[in-house]
Amino acid sequence: MHRILLREVVIDAPSTTFSAARDFWTAALAATAHVVPDHTEFTSLEDAAALLHVGMQDIGSDVARYHLDIESDDVEAEVTRLVGLGATEVNRHRSWVVLRDPAGLLLCVVPPESSDFETRSHAVE
Amino acid sequence: MHRILLREVVIDAPSTTFSAARDFWTAALAATAHVVPDHTEFTSLEDAAALLHVGMQDIGSDVARYHLDIESDDVEAEVTRLVGLGATEVNRHRSWVVLRDPAGLLLCVVPPESSDFETRSHAVE
Repeated sequence: MHRILLREVVIDAPSTTFSAARDFWTAALAATAHVVPDHTEFTSLEDAAALLHVGMQDIGSDVARYHLDIESDDVEAEVTRLVGLGATEVNRHRSWVVLRDPAGLLLCVVPPESSDFETRSHAVE
Repeated sequence: MHRILLREVVIDAPSTTFSAARDFWTAALAATAHVVPDHTEFTSLEDAAALLHVGMQDIGSDVARYHLDIESDDVEAEVTRLVGLGATEVNRHRSWVVLRDPAGLLLCVVPPESSDFETRSHAVE
């Protein structure tokens, strides 16, 4: 058994439109934008008018998209479970794993960061 | 002044992969899938392991994507505000308006449905 929580939507914008997209979403959600220290391709939209966390990522020359982050207290077990359900593994980064769902949409499995992980996550096996 | 809240992410899957995507996400998020009465292209994933609401939409022959729903107690004022921030209007449905952000990503402005709209939404002007 391990626990999971869909925590965040990340707005992935190409470099050419990143500033415009960041300024749009910061104002749209009445948030404040904070570049993530040491990982400056990521910007956190803090205090957003949102039920979940919202982040942005500069994805260079790639095509604009949203992606979802699922937290798990056992990243490897969760990746194995999701692949068993029909996901495909795309690649691995520092602490997270990138997958595609059966329709081809991107999601990441990440370690827990939310203060509400314990209370809001569900147990799966 | 009106109020807004980013309430939901919708997983838009083509008809050819819709069943696979629905079954994947229902299991992935430990949820239960409920077809929305009278709007059977939509499926709600209830009791999901998520900080926000998660829905699915069968989008026929279109390309898979996620989209975001922002609730507002004044849909027209919010659409006007977002267009002023750089969004473009795509089309209008029953009670909601579809927009694209400056990077081309889809979002909808919808009337409030969340029980936590009053407490979690932000005021904007």
